[in-house]
Amino acid sequence: MHLKKVRIVQDALDANATIAQANRADFDRAGVTVVNLMSAPGAGKTSLLERALTGLDGLAVGVLEGDVQGSFDADRLARLHVPVTQINTDPGFGGECHLDANMVRSAIPSLPLDEIDLLIIENVGNLVCPAEFRVGEDVRVMVSSVTEGEDKPLKYPLMFRTCDLVLINKIDLLPHLDYDLDAFLLNLDLVHADVPRMLVSARTGEGIEACRDWLKHLPSHASALT
Amino acid sequence: MHLKKVRIVQDALDANATIAQANRADFDRAGVTVVNLMSAPGAGKTSLLERALTGLDGLAVGVLEGDVQGSFDADRLARLHVPVTQINTDPGFGGECHLDANMVRSAIPSLPLDEIDLLIIENVGNLVCPAEFRVGEDVRVMVSSVTEGEDKPLKYPLMFRTCDLVLINKIDLLPHLDYDLDAFLLNLDLVHADVPRMLVSARTGEGIEACRDWLKHLPSHASALT
Repeated sequence: MHLKKVRIVQDALDANATIAQANRADFDRAGVTVVNLMSAPGAGKTSLLERALTGLDGLAVGVLEGDVQGSFDADRLARLHVPVTQINTDPGFGGECHLDANMVRSAIPSLPLDEIDLLIIENVGNLVCPAEFRVGEDVRVMVSSVTEGEDKPLKYPLMFRTCDLVLINKIDLLPHLDYDLDAFLLNLDLVHADVPRMLVSARTGEGIEACRDWLKHLPSHASALT
Repeated sequence: MHLKKVRIVQDALDANATIAQANRADFDRAGVTVVNLMSAPGAGKTSLLERALTGLDGLAVGVLEGDVQGSFDADRLARLHVPVTQINTDPGFGGECHLDANMVRSAIPSLPLDEIDLLIIENVGNLVCPAEFRVGEDVRVMVSSVTEGEDKPLKYPLMFRTCDLVLINKIDLLPHLDYDLDAFLLNLDLVHADVPRMLVSARTGEGIEACRDWLKHLPSHASALT
C-alpha cells in the first residue's frame, strides 16, 4: 500500500500563504513585478508614489490601493493617468487593518495585468499586521517618516525585518526635529542589517530619482519569460 | 413553564465587550478613572505623557503600556516615578496590533489600583483595530500628529468617531509643513462634529496645561463613591 502524507493547512496564515502563492503565479504568468508598499498612517506612501511614478520611462505601472474606507489616495493617483484599482477593507465593524492575499485575489480580475510591467500595492497604513500577510508580492518596500521617531525598528521589528527597501521620508523636516538619524540607522541595523535604505523627501523630490532607479532595476518577469 | 431567553455571545467583539465590562467594574470598585490613549505609531503618545503626567498635583496616576515588543516607552515613563505596567502583544508571529479587554484583564492583578486615581492605558500605535476593542476605559483620547496629513479622520473614521478628545500634536512643526489645519478640523467635524480638540506640542509644552486640566476634571469614581 502506498501512503501519501499531505500536510494539512493549519491556520489563517497558512491559508493566506496558499492564496499568496496563487496570486504570485498569476502575476508571474502576466509578467508583472509586484511591490507591496507599507508604512504607518501618514508616512507619505501616496505622496512618494505621486513623485516616483512619473518619469518611469518605458515601465508601465499600475496601482492597487488598499484603504479601510474611501478612495482618497486612489483619486490622487488616478490624476497621474496610471490605472488605479481600489480595495476597501471595511465590510466589518471598523475595517481590516491590513490587506491579505484573498483581498488582493479578489481584485486581480480588475487589474490590467496585460498592460502593465509593475504593480504597486499600497497597503493599509499600519506597522503591525501588514507585515504578517504576504499578498503575492515580489518585494516589500516600507516607508518610515523621520517624524515618527528613531525607535520604530525596535518597536515594530517584523515590518522592518521583512522588507527589501526602507525609504526614510520627510528628510526636509530634519532641521526642525530632534530626530537622530544615526540612532535610527543603528536601530534598523539591529533588526535588519543589510536592508537597502534611501533618504527621500516626497515634498522636495530629494532622493526620488534613486527610488525610480531601484524600481526600474527590479527583476523583470517579462524579460525572464522572453 | 417559565421560559428565559438568553442571548448568546456571538463573536469576538461580543466576548471582548463582556470582558471590558468586567474590567470596568473592577476599575469602578477601586475608584480609578481610566483613559485609553490611542494614535498612529510615532504620533507622540509617550512624549505627551512625559509632559502631562508631571504636575498633575493631587492626582495619583499609573500607566499600562501596550506594545508589540519591548518596553521602550515604559522605561521612559518609569523615569517619571509613576507606576508603569507593561503588556507585550507579541506571543504570535508578528504580534497583535491592538490591546483587547482580555489583555488588559490579565494585567489587572499587576496594577496598583488601590494607590492610583487615574490609569492611562497607552495602546499599540495603530489607527484601525484599537478603535474596535473597548478595554474597560471611561474615556478615549487620541493623538493625531500634524505630520500625518489632514485626511486622517476620513481614512480612519471609527477611531476619530469613538474618541472623547483629539490632541492635535506637533504643532511646533506647522510653519515647516504644507498641512492645512482648517481642512483637518473640517474633516474631523465631518466624522465627529462635537468632539473636543486641543492643539498641543509635546516638544515645546504648548497646550499641555489644558491637557492636564482636562484629565483633572474627568469624572472621578472615587468621589462618586464617597
